[in-house]
Amino acid sequence: MNASAAYYSGSKEILVNNYVPSQPDPLQIQVQPAYSGICGTDLHIFNGAMDQRVALPHIMGHETAGVISSLGTRVNGFEIGQPVTIMPLNACGKCAACYRGLSHICYQLEFLGIDTPGSFQSFWNVPAHTVHALPSTASLSHAAMIEPIAVACHDVRLGKVTEGDRVVVLGCGPIGILVAMVARSIGAEVTISEINDFRLELASSLGFTVINPNDNDLIEYVNDWTDGAGADVVFEVTGSAASTQTMTELVCARGTIVIVAIFGDPPPVDLFRLFWREIRIVGVRVYETQDFSQAINLVDKKILPLDSLISDIRPLDEIQKSFVDLSQGADIMKILIEA
Amino acid sequence: MNASAAYYSGSKEILVNNYVPSQPDPLQIQVQPAYSGICGTDLHIFNGAMDQRVALPHIMGHETAGVISSLGTRVNGFEIGQPVTIMPLNACGKCAACYRGLSHICYQLEFLGIDTPGSFQSFWNVPAHTVHALPSTASLSHAAMIEPIAVACHDVRLGKVTEGDRVVVLGCGPIGILVAMVARSIGAEVTISEINDFRLELASSLGFTVINPNDNDLIEYVNDWTDGAGADVVFEVTGSAASTQTMTELVCARGTIVIVAIFGDPPPVDLFRLFWREIRIVGVRVYETQDFSQAINLVDKKILPLDSLISDIRPLDEIQKSFVDLSQGADIMKILIEA
Repeated sequence: MNASAAYYSGSKEILVNNYVPSQPDPLQIQVQPAYSGICGTDLHIFNGAMDQRVALPHIMGHETAGVISSLGTRVNGFEIGQPVTIMPLNACGKCAACYRGLSHICYQLEFLGIDTPGSFQSFWNVPAHTVHALPSTASLSHAAMIEPIAVACHDVRLGKVTEGDRVVVLGCGPIGILVAMVARSIGAEVTISEINDFRLELASSLGFTVINPNDNDLIEYVNDWTDGAGADVVFEVTGSAASTQTMTELVCARGTIVIVAIFGDPPPVDLFRLFWREIRIVGVRVYETQDFSQAINLVDKKILPLDSLISDIRPLDEIQKSFVDLSQGADIMKILIEA
Repeated sequence: MNASAAYYSGSKEILVNNYVPSQPDPLQIQVQPAYSGICGTDLHIFNGAMDQRVALPHIMGHETAGVISSLGTRVNGFEIGQPVTIMPLNACGKCAACYRGLSHICYQLEFLGIDTPGSFQSFWNVPAHTVHALPSTASLSHAAMIEPIAVACHDVRLGKVTEGDRVVVLGCGPIGILVAMVARSIGAEVTISEINDFRLELASSLGFTVINPNDNDLIEYVNDWTDGAGADVVFEVTGSAASTQTMTELVCARGTIVIVAIFGDPPPVDLFRLFWREIRIVGVRVYETQDFSQAINLVDKKILPLDSLISDIRPLDEIQKSFVDLSQGADIMKILIEA
């Protein structure tokens, strides 16, 4: 069996080598990834920000779709050749979060592809409970986007976006644009704030109202748009302190700010404004099974214009170049790696 | 008719003078305040922090109970001599907040006693819709606490505190201790964090678990108390940046932080921790009618140990001294002024 994997070895270096795949354990399923997306977290790993968490050499990748190549001896309900995607969360089942039904934010969460080897390899053994069957009609390249779409579904659900809401998305990377798409799919009006021209143009071409806050006054715009009320829901997807200074100014009475971005140092937050307008700030992370199912349905029904987000599909041999391109901020939304 | 009022004239000075009371307008009720509490906001006014908002000379006071002394010509459903309290909010009825049923945080809210003359006078004319009848059995000194109790009811309700919840209250001034009492009245376990010895002793004497975070590690305490889960709800009632650094460390997965305090400069908030545990931060302000009704009921049924919070009852002539004592941080929880 010819098999290769991409090994991150530290210092922004990924080497593709042949390896001998192992058989799945009794409760595992072996998947042959067809396409795997490169995630912002993978870029953090590549740039050395998570060297303390990952064991080197490390195989990244957790946004994938493929077909089942082998079944563990105790696995039922799946068959070889079946198209699947992976919800890459492995919870402990015992901690305070799991006890409350919040296993997706388990205090000892094992994230497949970060805390374990990931999908940038020819054959990936994963716990059977993380495998979700795909409809036979689903495109596998679109299905590789199910994981980030599930993030957006979770964000929009926890933000309690409803039809007719006026929504602002701060930051238009892959997650920001998916949040905008999912919010629009349930009937919200969406404005996107972004400073990168490529992303602004892409969002505009998809029919979104876009604002570059360096060129226009975002607060004034939102006030005009909402007749002085403020937006119903604001998604913070930039992770920048400049954005957190603006976000509290954009929200209506008892409106919601959803913190999607991963922040470093604690930024200043205007808690007086929060108090004055009874604003809610909601932290959100990954997804629950219902979000994953919703994402599968959105892909199967072709509800989101995903082709416009897949900037390129490249072979595994080009993974190093792809990480470099993304790190340098090239005009790319999402790259899929073809195994 | 012998009448006197306390006039704040700026520069930390309040003068008590005689005046000739006016008759209530057609849709007003004239109330003779029996007792009025001094609120933290009144202290802000006294110390000059709100000189741009109040018109000098200004009569403060908005925590009051008394009896009706005169009725406007178009007022129905009330009678002279009836015991009442005032919910001191006058909303515009037209703004985006009012439109959403959030008239208590109306964008043009008029707060009686701040934006209009208040209750530190012998006869107070107020809009009839702000007047709430009291049960004939209610103590008028306790009833003067209904307004701050309603704040606490609102905070606990919006914090979604439920029976069995483990709750931390950061800061034990009059509002903090009332939040603790209301949370306990619905079955929550409450720990109070405070650095002032007088307040710590008072809270302890009322049966609360108290922690001085200068002497003990609050985070470690809460982790031990909750078996590593974190508290269900944390109330931030200090308004200090030191406290906002701690608050995100105290909360369980998808737990709630309620911002009760009035903050000045935006403090740093750990949005990574917020994201990681899916924490919600909820801004809360004043109260809605249901909170006011709940507060009236708590007073009428004598459910809260209010006598322990009323440090002193003083005549109107001693109002200047009372403001000075409170500003200097004397061993006082609440002072009521007797009209």
